Amino acid sequence: MVKRVEMLYLSQEEILDLGIGLGEVIGLIEKGLYEHGKGRVENPPKPGIHSRSDSFIHAMPAYFEGLGIGGLKWVSGYPSNRARGLPQILGVMIVNDMETGVPLAVMDCRWITAVRTAAVTAVTAKFCARDDSEVLGVVGCGVQGRMNLLALKEVVPGLSRVKVFDINRAAMERYRDDLSEKAGVDIEICESVREVARGSDILLTATQRLEEPLVKDEWFEPGCLGFGIEASRAWYGDAILGAGKERNRMTRAVALAVR
Amino acid sequence: MVKRVEMLYLSQEEILDLGIGLGEVIGLIEKGLYEHGKGRVENPPKPGIHSRSDSFIHAMPAYFEGLGIGGLKWVSGYPSNRARGLPQILGVMIVNDMETGVPLAVMDCRWITAVRTAAVTAVTAKFCARDDSEVLGVVGCGVQGRMNLLALKEVVPGLSRVKVFDINRAAMERYRDDLSEKAGVDIEICESVREVARGSDILLTATQRLEEPLVKDEWFEPGCLGFGIEASRAWYGDAILGAGKERNRMTRAVALAVR
Repeated sequence: MVKRVEMLYLSQEEILDLGIGLGEVIGLIEKGLYEHGKGRVENPPKPGIHSRSDSFIHAMPAYFEGLGIGGLKWVSGYPSNRARGLPQILGVMIVNDMETGVPLAVMDCRWITAVRTAAVTAVTAKFCARDDSEVLGVVGCGVQGRMNLLALKEVVPGLSRVKVFDINRAAMERYRDDLSEKAGVDIEICESVREVARGSDILLTATQRLEEPLVKDEWFEPGCLGFGIEASRAWYGDAILGAGKERNRMTRAVALAVR
Repeated sequence: MVKRVEMLYLSQEEILDLGIGLGEVIGLIEKGLYEHGKGRVENPPKPGIHSRSDSFIHAMPAYFEGLGIGGLKWVSGYPSNRARGLPQILGVMIVNDMETGVPLAVMDCRWITAVRTAAVTAVTAKFCARDDSEVLGVVGCGVQGRMNLLALKEVVPGLSRVKVFDINRAAMERYRDDLSEKAGVDIEICESVREVARGSDILLTATQRLEEPLVKDEWFEPGCLGFGIEASRAWYGDAILGAGKERNRMTRAVALAVR
């Protein structure tokens, strides 16, 4: 009964030290989405616990039958962590041996969650964005606003200009200072969501809980591809429902794939 | 984003070294069941993945509102592990801070699972067994057959005789040799389930997957308390349905509480 079972623990720092590139992650996510599309993924509904009215911890098991890979993410969202100087989204990911069930590794899930979410955007844009897309609009300059720019840059070669808005001006400035050179794009600070939307070929919102949506249908340019990372809560219903009608494209792929 | 989140990992060996007594575990489980009875436990249905036709890995989240304790067990069952010399049931348990979601500890779940399951038996027996119970019948001499004897001994002071059966004779002999002195009881090896059932005040089955049930209704003595640790698969339906009718008692508490 006391037989030794070895297991690897990888902290956030150790995962970052591996230097895994976004391009590699995007390739793997494309493979995973392909498997899901083929019906070869066991991906049951996620249950969770809720110790505060605005919090969750979700159990997200998945098994990729065709790839022989399976495990679980146990991830929490506590908005009040911001005031404590702690990440709002955190948790662990466990990978198991699919022949024996043995847990092979427990990993901090923060970077993995951030890049995976952004990689789903990238795979979607690879297949759904207009080939001549040049301008990206980003609403919300947090982890996802950053990671999604870097991921989109991997798959949209013509992307050269980024228009951003955040309710926190300092966050916008940090975004511009940190990413202009790193992503090789011109980053333009805007005064409103409406201004971001104007002329954007791809419009991405990565906000938090909102009192009401931000993006109106009429701001959503023809031919534009839309992403609502916050489960599309930043988009008015008619903007979502009116998309995909030879006018523009709104994808819930990211929100759905976040599960 | 790279903020450090510390987490404790406890291996099976480290958990055993803590020397936590069964009596203490039984007290805590009674507290937990009480909270559950009061409706103060968030305990959603468990989803899982199944990489082999006979295997499972289950995600079992729970939050004890009244105690401020929550987390998840991610536990696998691979019957084919026996042939590989690996535990059939294994996995990890994660405890999270209920104010921030931060994972506080990841623990090997084998010992915890074994004692928790047996402790539910003990709490049930504390309230449901006849006060003059002396004879325990055990079918299946594995981890649960052992742990349940030790746990019952904690709460049934008069328990002095144990009748056992297992399809593996060597397992029965090891059970007798290992536990007679440790549990302070006379252990008698039987030739059949029927012989075990005869005269038992408490009858406990802790078997594996079975082709068909083992325990017949007519073998189940009047006033006897029954436990089917294997989700009661070892009990014929009429033995289960006929219980609790001023004749004998069958509890599915253990099976249900295993969840």
